[in-house]
Amino acid sequence: VNILAFSPDGKLLASGSVDATVKLWNLAIRQEVATLRGHRDGIFALSFTPDGHTLISGSRDKTIRLWPAPTFEEIEAAEKAARVAR
Amino acid sequence: VNILAFSPDGKLLASGSVDATVKLWNLAIRQEVATLRGHRDGIFALSFTPDGHTLISGSRDKTIRLWPAPTFEEIEAAEKAARVAR
Amino acid sequence: VNILAFSPDGKLLASGSVDATVKLWNLAIRQEVATLRGHRDGIFALSFTPDGHTLISGSRDKTIRLWPAPTFEEIEAAEKAARVAR
Amino acid sequence: VNILAFSPDGKLLASGSVDATVKLWNLAIRQEVATLRGHRDGIFALSFTPDGHTLISGSRDKTIRLWPAPTFEEIEAAEKAARVAR
Repeated sequence: VNILAFSPDGKLLASGSVDATVKLWNLAIRQEVATLRGHRDGIFALSFTPDGHTLISGSRDKTIRLWPAPTFEEIEAAEKAARVAR
Repeated sequence: VNILAFSPDGKLLASGSVDATVKLWNLAIRQEVATLRGHRDGIFALSFTPDGHTLISGSRDKTIRLWPAPTFEEIEAAEKAARVAR
Repeated sequence: VNILAFSPDGKLLASGSVDATVKLWNLAIRQEVATLRGHRDGIFALSFTPDGHTLISGSRDKTIRLWPAPTFEEIEAAEKAARVAR
Repeated sequence: VNILAFSPDGKLLASGSVDATVKLWNLAIRQEVATLRGHRDGIFALSFTPDGHTLISGSRDKTIRLWPAPTFEEIEAAEKAARVAR
């Protein structure tokens, strides 16, 4: 785990790992609630947008990916744009 | 030391090191007050929860660990959950 | 991508990469709007000034560079000063 | 440059480098105003205390160092304590 990020409401913790996954944790129950897969190299940057609506991850694979709350399923178009941009 | 984190009240400083330890410092007296052991690789992420009740550390060992204030003794259940999650 | 930074108004996202570029993203339209070139090694530090007027990047090339909003064209004098300073 | 930190009043920028130095910049005049020497390895963590009175640096040399404003000369006792603590 290289990086931690809290949601603005303080309820969720996101963690980014060298194994290319982002994990979401519910802090109240101290449980992992989701693993976000898609990056192809370690995660070194991670932040919720200030409005809390989207989690953004940055990887050594040179892309950023957007994961919108509350499902945190990746935005397809954004993923493609991120892949083009290095 | 790879990462520093202040408690929300500004009284404590936590530092995470490549030697896998987290240290807590009392800023008023500029003294180390605790060394938190448990991680098996360097600490690269460190943050107090916004409510200040828990210090969370992330390590190259792929786990996160939770250390609740004021004793900062690790939560056993959380540790196990964190170990399962990579 | 090693580092992410939001503009204080939450509208822009900057990302810094191991490939020595800084990218700017418009969060509302989820599009890359600029690539800032100049650094000669990976970007590991990135922050908007608190007033939001300037983006500052720090690189493994040992320099910092200043990119003023809204054009984010690099300040020549600042670049030279940053190059002298390591 | 691995890490940037702003003073709480937004007037100073501190940067930490792989060359073991911390530099202070006056943002209004965009000039380097001081180089803080003492660490024996790269700087990866850097933060002003919330009250802005002290700059704290963390290095791959396993120490933290305290640099009090406005002179930012290192505190001798703190340095020794930091050296003992790894």
